[in-house]
Amino acid sequence: MPTFSVPDLQALSLQILNAAGVPTADAEIVAKELAEANAVGHDSHGVMRLMQYMQMIDDGFVRLGAKVETVRSGGSFTILDANFNFGQVAANLAVERGVELARNVGTATVMIRNCNHVGRLGSYSKKAAEQGCTTTMAVNAPGPGGVAPFGGIERKLGTNPISMSAPWRNSSLVLDMTTSASAEGKVRVALQKGDQVPEGWIIDVEGNPTTDPQKFYDGGALLPLGGPLGFKGSGMSMMIDVFSGMLSGSGICRTDLPRGANGVWMYFVDVKQFIDRAEYDALMETYVESLKSCRRLPGVEEILLPGEIELRRDAQRRAEGVSIPDETWRQINELADRLGADLSDFND
Amino acid sequence: MPTFSVPDLQALSLQILNAAGVPTADAEIVAKELAEANAVGHDSHGVMRLMQYMQMIDDGFVRLGAKVETVRSGGSFTILDANFNFGQVAANLAVERGVELARNVGTATVMIRNCNHVGRLGSYSKKAAEQGCTTTMAVNAPGPGGVAPFGGIERKLGTNPISMSAPWRNSSLVLDMTTSASAEGKVRVALQKGDQVPEGWIIDVEGNPTTDPQKFYDGGALLPLGGPLGFKGSGMSMMIDVFSGMLSGSGICRTDLPRGANGVWMYFVDVKQFIDRAEYDALMETYVESLKSCRRLPGVEEILLPGEIELRRDAQRRAEGVSIPDETWRQINELADRLGADLSDFND
Repeated sequence: MPTFSVPDLQALSLQILNAAGVPTADAEIVAKELAEANAVGHDSHGVMRLMQYMQMIDDGFVRLGAKVETVRSGGSFTILDANFNFGQVAANLAVERGVELARNVGTATVMIRNCNHVGRLGSYSKKAAEQGCTTTMAVNAPGPGGVAPFGGIERKLGTNPISMSAPWRNSSLVLDMTTSASAEGKVRVALQKGDQVPEGWIIDVEGNPTTDPQKFYDGGALLPLGGPLGFKGSGMSMMIDVFSGMLSGSGICRTDLPRGANGVWMYFVDVKQFIDRAEYDALMETYVESLKSCRRLPGVEEILLPGEIELRRDAQRRAEGVSIPDETWRQINELADRLGADLSDFND
Repeated sequence: MPTFSVPDLQALSLQILNAAGVPTADAEIVAKELAEANAVGHDSHGVMRLMQYMQMIDDGFVRLGAKVETVRSGGSFTILDANFNFGQVAANLAVERGVELARNVGTATVMIRNCNHVGRLGSYSKKAAEQGCTTTMAVNAPGPGGVAPFGGIERKLGTNPISMSAPWRNSSLVLDMTTSASAEGKVRVALQKGDQVPEGWIIDVEGNPTTDPQKFYDGGALLPLGGPLGFKGSGMSMMIDVFSGMLSGSGICRTDLPRGANGVWMYFVDVKQFIDRAEYDALMETYVESLKSCRRLPGVEEILLPGEIELRRDAQRRAEGVSIPDETWRQINELADRLGADLSDFND
């Protein structure tokens, strides 16, 4: 497997996106998000997505260079229409607007409608946290998703993820989770590897519990978070449909939108207007110390904070580089050839 | 078991609270919250709490008539200090302030510090929803709670509940859940009845899974929501500690505060400024229809929406009355005698 530095992953993504006709400013944003997903260890959201994104361009799902417009705004909120540009473009703008507005009035809410795949929610909530905001962010799928409501068999809900973040030292705590037992991508990875998925993730088309990932693709469904307490994950997913889908204007139960045309809800709190930052930092240290000192189950080396795994992997991969599977690298080169992008600097 | 109308439960609670010296305006709020908890079927938060609240007054945990003060505010937020008055008094004021501010600037955030037990979160988020707001509300415990972080054995987190609500027809959807597998109250109920608790709720003092509720009180801990995916419930609980505890100023890891001196975070969105209400209502009907039409697991009669059980129980109990266990009724009468409250109207 070839290994690349994070800046190289970003540079080669940029070349491909540029060759595909993505305007440079937008291509730079998307390339950076892809490389950063690899850096923190979420390879499923990294450069392997280039092939999918090209397909979305070819299929007309991504509208290159579409302007992200402000639809409505008020004293403490803004609603953006991404107009089916890359979700990363709209979500980055939303962070910029949200942080600015929160600095003015203490908090901000930014909604995005008609937003394509944004990638990792944690990427955006983290950016805002590093600018001094605690945040909540959630995304819904306006069409039928892959998740059955609690007690149901049929796919009616998206994996409707939620992220929450908070400044911590020079970095941030970042929770980033689906309200389903698992993301669909993890089921796909298991299928491709020939593995079973853990119990409690999926049911088959008849509603029977199964660990065979193929059963999900044969009409099964993901289960909501919580197992026997799945009414909690299910209920949270429904409320995210209301916040992210209805209030953004993206909607729900729609079949007239491109795949991935998500609704996004972001909420920002400017910490220093609520509590002096020095006091906040001191509280955070006391809290982290309390959690880290917790007695642990056998085999558990450390109590981890939200996003701590990603922080460590980011440091490691920026130092050591990121290995890209041979097949992914082959597909990226094939794509580059087709588009006329020159990746010779990255092939040695 | 004697049966009472909801207004009678409220009236007798008011008499007792008045006799205990609670100022009338505050007593009316607390009495209403207690009766309404019984109405929706959450008897654990109903009139049986009167005895506990009297104890809290006697112990100086509740400061009668303390003024709820505004500590800080900005364009889109307010921080209240409940000064250890009843939590219900501060939380009702927070709803009033939040709805008003959201109507002005689109959204509002209200924090409460030094807030005693507020009762059911869903009661407040519901009130705001019925005034046209979607809401998020979370409460943290500033001191050691009853929940172990994922991978841990020791109690380090509160049950840190979260509620989300949204207007629906003339009523509302109301999610109201702990981020732990269960509330502590349910473990206590099992203990008193001599029942076991379901698997996955608690561990004993050594971290072993157990279904014996006594083991919780012998130094065990509640588990976070999610079972093998408990890092999700655990992570959400930690973020609630940041939002509700740190940003409110109530703090975390404190041992210098009275029991139940919680931090509260409330977030309000004025729906009609985000989306025309008629369009919202139409989306909601389509969504509910989609969920209700879901194929179901054997034995499941209906896919339930967040808070739907409470809505139905409320209608039923307001029509048929609420049965109060003999022992609870005996304790209430004993309390009334001690305080010199006249409950003869309710004893026949």
